[in-house]
Amino acid sequence: MSKTFDKLKPYLEKSMALMTARNLFELDDQTTAHFESEEYTSKVVGILSDEYMKSLINDDVHKLLGKLQSEKEQAQLTDTERAIVKELGKTYEQLESIPPEEYRDFNEYTSLATRKWAKAKKDNRYEDFAPYLKKIIEYKKKFAAYRAKGKKNPYEVLLGDFDECFMMKDLDLFFDKIKAEIVPLLQEVAKKAETVDKSYNYLTYDIQKQREFCRYLSGYVGFDFNRGIIGESAHPFTLQLHNHDVRITDKYLENNLESAMFSIIHESGHALYEMNIDDAITQTLVGGGASMGMHESQSRFYENVLGRSKAFWEPIYGKLVDTYPDNLKDISLDHFIKGINKAAPSLIRTEADELSYCIHIIVRYEIEKMIFNSDIDIEELPQIWNQKYQEYMGITPSTDSEGILQDTHWACGEFGYFPSYAIGTAIASQLYACMQDKMPIEEYLKAGNLTPIREFLRDNIHKYGAVKNTNQLLMDVTGEEFNADYYINYLKDKYRALYDL
Amino acid sequence: MSKTFDKLKPYLEKSMALMTARNLFELDDQTTAHFESEEYTSKVVGILSDEYMKSLINDDVHKLLGKLQSEKEQAQLTDTERAIVKELGKTYEQLESIPPEEYRDFNEYTSLATRKWAKAKKDNRYEDFAPYLKKIIEYKKKFAAYRAKGKKNPYEVLLGDFDECFMMKDLDLFFDKIKAEIVPLLQEVAKKAETVDKSYNYLTYDIQKQREFCRYLSGYVGFDFNRGIIGESAHPFTLQLHNHDVRITDKYLENNLESAMFSIIHESGHALYEMNIDDAITQTLVGGGASMGMHESQSRFYENVLGRSKAFWEPIYGKLVDTYPDNLKDISLDHFIKGINKAAPSLIRTEADELSYCIHIIVRYEIEKMIFNSDIDIEELPQIWNQKYQEYMGITPSTDSEGILQDTHWACGEFGYFPSYAIGTAIASQLYACMQDKMPIEEYLKAGNLTPIREFLRDNIHKYGAVKNTNQLLMDVTGEEFNADYYINYLKDKYRALYDL
Repeated sequence: MSKTFDKLKPYLEKSMALMTARNLFELDDQTTAHFESEEYTSKVVGILSDEYMKSLINDDVHKLLGKLQSEKEQAQLTDTERAIVKELGKTYEQLESIPPEEYRDFNEYTSLATRKWAKAKKDNRYEDFAPYLKKIIEYKKKFAAYRAKGKKNPYEVLLGDFDECFMMKDLDLFFDKIKAEIVPLLQEVAKKAETVDKSYNYLTYDIQKQREFCRYLSGYVGFDFNRGIIGESAHPFTLQLHNHDVRITDKYLENNLESAMFSIIHESGHALYEMNIDDAITQTLVGGGASMGMHESQSRFYENVLGRSKAFWEPIYGKLVDTYPDNLKDISLDHFIKGINKAAPSLIRTEADELSYCIHIIVRYEIEKMIFNSDIDIEELPQIWNQKYQEYMGITPSTDSEGILQDTHWACGEFGYFPSYAIGTAIASQLYACMQDKMPIEEYLKAGNLTPIREFLRDNIHKYGAVKNTNQLLMDVTGEEFNADYYINYLKDKYRALYDL
Repeated sequence: MSKTFDKLKPYLEKSMALMTARNLFELDDQTTAHFESEEYTSKVVGILSDEYMKSLINDDVHKLLGKLQSEKEQAQLTDTERAIVKELGKTYEQLESIPPEEYRDFNEYTSLATRKWAKAKKDNRYEDFAPYLKKIIEYKKKFAAYRAKGKKNPYEVLLGDFDECFMMKDLDLFFDKIKAEIVPLLQEVAKKAETVDKSYNYLTYDIQKQREFCRYLSGYVGFDFNRGIIGESAHPFTLQLHNHDVRITDKYLENNLESAMFSIIHESGHALYEMNIDDAITQTLVGGGASMGMHESQSRFYENVLGRSKAFWEPIYGKLVDTYPDNLKDISLDHFIKGINKAAPSLIRTEADELSYCIHIIVRYEIEKMIFNSDIDIEELPQIWNQKYQEYMGITPSTDSEGILQDTHWACGEFGYFPSYAIGTAIASQLYACMQDKMPIEEYLKAGNLTPIREFLRDNIHKYGAVKNTNQLLMDVTGEEFNADYYINYLKDKYRALYDL
């Protein structure tokens, strides 16, 4: 037992409480609060953020951290404590070079900007959001420059915040592979998939019934309603107060059956991760997922690898048909499976099929690289966005709401986040390949028994929280570090089989 | 402009942000969070409370406060600043003698106890809640003793927290008057009111329609949906984050039409107060209502003085009948008015008529006095409660859920709060008498025009927040301090007219 670590505890607990409060404000903001309260509430959020920063970035913590990073102290720490110290070191690095008042202003500003974004998206007015986006980018550039100290590419700094295992060179390689292998495959599949009649998906689906079926789906994959709640918001998300209180949201569209269903499976995947983190580490710095990429691997494993497979739907498709008999009575399971895997160039990331999904990420990654490596004009971003969609997808958004305004991330200042979705998607395939060797996944799915799958992920990934990083987890579970080939092969095998290519 | 006051500002702002966060947790707890999260979330709330205390109770603030209380500094302050300094002085007195760790434990404990109370009430198991109640009382006795320093009655200390203008001698006098005048009147009215057939109120009332009508009612009295939200909870309440974000809740019962309607008018009265507080003082120590009594005067003015009058319902009763034609088509407006004013001994405070209401308060006041002035056995409280109901009302609760477990206040540690309801009720009558001299209230109500009433209250009471105390407000509006005779006369006049006594 380290006395130095004990001295650190009150600081960690205070920062945890302040962060949890901020999370609750964010949750409330996105699910409940109305526009008019923003000016006053963002002041509160700004002060809480400021206090959060002060709770960790101060002379006392600095001294304790320095001591705990020494070899002698490290030897006295448990694995969890060592991981907490490492995480604190990262947080310290992230915050110490940013002047507190700037950090406070930034947090107050993003709280406001997120609401402005929501309104601008609703009104399809990029020009209303552009000044906010511009200022957020200025903040992020400045912060990244403080931290880079001239030694690093600023965008590299931001990427590292989401996953220390994936830097620009890794991502460039990864995305080049996808461009080479998946973009042509998408064209090939899209041509064949055109013949799949998916008009059933756009009939009228009663929203209350969608809510009920999505709740059922969430429970089906293992969401624990004693530890979580499903809400509604403009953009589905997962947010935990701790491992016993995980909130997910969904968005229901009357004329789209799939949208809410796959969102809820996705968010439930995130939620399972958070709910399964050990009690011993929840409410600590390592009490969340290992990385955004790892987190997305779980959500996308459930959403796509399981959720878009025939075996998954075999036991429950009948229930869906019973929920909407008029719309689905003539749609066979095989038809439905082709429908949910109908690949085509698309405009909305969250509703994209598995093949086009990563192309959405490539667009965002390339724009973020441009933003942080050149003096791009914010007014021109919608044009750049649209040109890239035309280039990679062959289609152009007709409005900014279904173009550059579709995602909330930039309004929150989360540049560098998007690649995590692609990394996670690829990790999901790597885990799937490994798990297939260890258990009869398809049999389990056909039997409606998801427990062994959930337990495997809990025991090998979830429970560790951020005690291990992405590559450590992958190494321990699959025997190798990140390898994108599993993903390329998964997509090729799946789509060739589905469409007899 | 006082430089000393400027130095105080960061402390005040930090405490405001922490208090707002605590309020949001309370709101979430009562409307959204599930039982299982309590253990972990109460830890967060405990830390935030601790930080709140530290933000105000520290050497820096102590010195600044001492300086600001001096005659020289007082002369340099604006009225608002002086009121803030006075309020801070009160807060300081409340907290400085309580050891921080005890205050933290207490807040963590009440957060937990509130959830235990909700479950015990649901399960009708007083024995499950009793140990928590016992510990809360121990805390409150200890805290009151710290503050009383042997000079004051401990219960007096607690009463002062809710309204400095009403001490035990005032309340004893007030309640004696009610016992002498209103208890006999209730008996007399109840006898006559027996003949009023109120069975219509207990038919089946679709809950979704209740939600919609209650929302309408709330807007009708002036609730601003750009500054507030209506939620649902086990016990209706009002909670503001600031004057631009006021949340109220309601509880809907399928077999009781009145319950949700009068709760929503009541909570809307509270909400109007908070929404109308000046922007210049919201998010400061004087940015809430003047006192609990003053707050209750507004809620009960709307609920009873306006809401149970014939003139109020004249323009809108037709809409209610249209909402439930099967249930109400044969109930005339006169019948309905007699129904909503049907007085009888009752068990549930929040659903009591105007005549029996204060008797509910007397029971609680007398029990609280016993708790803080004798070594009462917590196990015996349900018996004492039931005996008092038998004595004053002539009826006995058949379960603890409709007896001692009905209110949330004690679970939150809010001893000394209940008298505010009675004070508020009486103030409502005093204000009514004064307003009748100044404007044609009945005409306005009949015309469905509540604006002049709302503006009068805004301009004479609401906007001041806690810059003036209860008696100062009453003095400035009505020309005299609290006078219970208006209340006694109001009840006598109203019920004698209604029931031809």
